[in-house]
Amino acid sequence: METFFTFLEKRVDDCSSLLCVGLDPHVSELSSPSAASALDFCLTLIKATAPYAAAFKPNAAFFEVFGAEGWTVLKQVIEAIDEESKRLGSMIPVVLDAKRGDIASTAEAYAMSAFETLGAHCITLSPYLGKDSIDPFLNYPERGVFLLCKTSNAGSGDLQDVKIMKEERGKTDDSLSSFLFLYEHVAHLAQTWNTNNNIGLVVGATHIEALKRVRAAAPDLWFLAPGVGAQGGELEAALRAGLRRDGRGMLIPISRGISRAKNPKLAAAEIRDQMLQIKRQLTQE
Amino acid sequence: METFFTFLEKRVDDCSSLLCVGLDPHVSELSSPSAASALDFCLTLIKATAPYAAAFKPNAAFFEVFGAEGWTVLKQVIEAIDEESKRLGSMIPVVLDAKRGDIASTAEAYAMSAFETLGAHCITLSPYLGKDSIDPFLNYPERGVFLLCKTSNAGSGDLQDVKIMKEERGKTDDSLSSFLFLYEHVAHLAQTWNTNNNIGLVVGATHIEALKRVRAAAPDLWFLAPGVGAQGGELEAALRAGLRRDGRGMLIPISRGISRAKNPKLAAAEIRDQMLQIKRQLTQE
Repeated sequence: METFFTFLEKRVDDCSSLLCVGLDPHVSELSSPSAASALDFCLTLIKATAPYAAAFKPNAAFFEVFGAEGWTVLKQVIEAIDEESKRLGSMIPVVLDAKRGDIASTAEAYAMSAFETLGAHCITLSPYLGKDSIDPFLNYPERGVFLLCKTSNAGSGDLQDVKIMKEERGKTDDSLSSFLFLYEHVAHLAQTWNTNNNIGLVVGATHIEALKRVRAAAPDLWFLAPGVGAQGGELEAALRAGLRRDGRGMLIPISRGISRAKNPKLAAAEIRDQMLQIKRQLTQE
Repeated sequence: METFFTFLEKRVDDCSSLLCVGLDPHVSELSSPSAASALDFCLTLIKATAPYAAAFKPNAAFFEVFGAEGWTVLKQVIEAIDEESKRLGSMIPVVLDAKRGDIASTAEAYAMSAFETLGAHCITLSPYLGKDSIDPFLNYPERGVFLLCKTSNAGSGDLQDVKIMKEERGKTDDSLSSFLFLYEHVAHLAQTWNTNNNIGLVVGATHIEALKRVRAAAPDLWFLAPGVGAQGGELEAALRAGLRRDGRGMLIPISRGISRAKNPKLAAAEIRDQMLQIKRQLTQE
């Protein structure tokens, strides 16, 4: 059976890219503050960048802000990616960046909303509520989740960098030092929970040390590593710290770096080529 | 200036109630699996229970699952609460249970979506991304947030019960024992962050010990304490552990316990009366 990550890897190989094109129709980027304008913005970006996109990542917030119309547009955007994929002859996964997190029947409803109503292939989730809040999403065996682990923002340390008592990890502790950050605990949990190849982690490309630690804690998992460009993350350092030994395992989402470029198609192609070059270099070392 | 919690306290006094009526139009409770049916379900509940409701809490997931139509209904539900409030002559706060959590312009868009597009007065948020993910919501001085602290589900311990190293708390540690759970760290942070009386905490009524610890860490904050009834939480024990000294400080959300009752109006009235009785007893002790 195809899991989300075998699906993603197929696409990564097809397009020789680790680029995840962010679809963030922020009102400041639109020709007018309307859902229709958000749709235009996304369709243009999809058309221009699809050949270089290992995945697309629409951000739910920028659609929700337009209410029901925004929700309609979000669904149309996901459908448009599907159509563009068919045209290209290679299906492109859609990661819905929604950072949901709830329990029981509520989590089931969010999973149904993302995977059935909207048709996304993967979703970002908060781990704060624990395994049973993730399960309703994992119950879709061909879909995937990226759990927030170490995020790219300045305030991420408030919780994620809390040092936890060693007893929490028992004797399996293989971290790089004598203590464990909370985000490493999350990485260990995710590695353990990933029995069906459908869990990845969000690890900011702005935190190179964290990328190394999370890679040590979760050697098999895919990372979604935001922060390259706009937030100051550096591509080569991030790939060096986070790529798996097989040269895969990292999706690099870029939004403004492409959407605000003079020529988004060219920007996407160039970033893809940069990634490819760095990846080749790293696997030859 | 009126803050969210002075607004809530006014309503709590007006209706002598700590009851927060949950609006969870779960498909299993509807006459048909449609957004229209979800609207009927909510309007009927609002009409029946408004006199006893200190607040209403629509759960975003059960609307999102119907896509754009569900989003339209969610807005209509919030407007209906506003109208019912005017009829009663006492405004009833709306807590949007959405458990959002993101950063920078994304968090701004979620805040705008909840507070402006939908018109909610308060929202539930995840604390996992830290203070800067909360700020865009706190920038609305008359609106409020409830941060997830210790949730009512079985898996809540995976992260929330992790024991953190004491150095994290410095010399201000006033917890009940020699170590600190992660959820207590969140409570301490929230108490510190609450400079504008617009932060509360979600603490499951199913965890009496946690309620006590969180109350010790955050003596001033309002708690939203789910889990009474359906999830096995016991009302008296919860109020005893979590009420502030002024007999306020806890909102008790009930969903199925009211919506599935033969007579939801009567069920709401009875729960309100139980709360009032327990509260009186506690303040006389």
